Amino acid sequence: MNKRVRLCGKLQRRKSNSTNFDYKQVLVIRTDLKMSRGKIGVQAAHAAVSAAEEARHHHPSWWQKWFNEGQKKVAVKVTSRERLLEVKEKAVRLGLPCVVIRDRGLTEIKPGTITALGIGPAPDADVDKATSDLPLL
Amino acid sequence: MNKRVRLCGKLQRRKSNSTNFDYKQVLVIRTDLKMSRGKIGVQAAHAAVSAAEEARHHHPSWWQKWFNEGQKKVAVKVTSRERLLEVKEKAVRLGLPCVVIRDRGLTEIKPGTITALGIGPAPDADVDKATSDLPLL
Repeated sequence: MNKRVRLCGKLQRRKSNSTNFDYKQVLVIRTDLKMSRGKIGVQAAHAAVSAAEEARHHHPSWWQKWFNEGQKKVAVKVTSRERLLEVKEKAVRLGLPCVVIRDRGLTEIKPGTITALGIGPAPDADVDKATSDLPLL
Repeated sequence: MNKRVRLCGKLQRRKSNSTNFDYKQVLVIRTDLKMSRGKIGVQAAHAAVSAAEEARHHHPSWWQKWFNEGQKKVAVKVTSRERLLEVKEKAVRLGLPCVVIRDRGLTEIKPGTITALGIGPAPDADVDKATSDLPLL
């Protein structure tokens, strides 16, 4: 969330120092797969990078504002593939950038398994319409 | 890792279907902070997005090849701030794109705490020179 990032030795201060964010990205992770914390970390990273690329291409102003204010990210959980896809459909109907992550199953899980969903960055209130009922991971 | 990504309903097939990767990104996470799996997921996502942006700006061909071959990501652990900074210095000396993540401490940890390090995407062998001795998260 709103943070400083040291770029290989050079401190870069985010433009926003407040704890208020107009934009956010939500990372929806399946917990029914019983993935390790390392696997969860990688799936969250896949969802974050891929959904951010969707936003950068299709909603560049959202992406830029989110990046500049400190890239708010929230990780939430679902307990089934079906629930994850319901959230994705809601995000699609709301016109939010989103990406479903399918893992090739090289470790821990079967090939093609849907593990995560990245939504946004997008305006905070719009993302909440799709994800506010999901518990934190 | 090498995977298919469904972009809000439209299936995008990665160019590479092999399990061999020429490029990778390594996400180095501190485990001594006893962060929750959700916090770890968000810190890994911060490291992935910020380091990928570094690479996209300073090594665009690395970034593009990594993105196209399926964005290999590996999560590893360190047990102290000092060890994380040693790995960062090694990455800097190797000329690898990297970003240290400092969390504002809005949840779980103190403001300004260094939580994670993102290295790459960069050529696999070069990243290994900085991270091959680190255990998986």
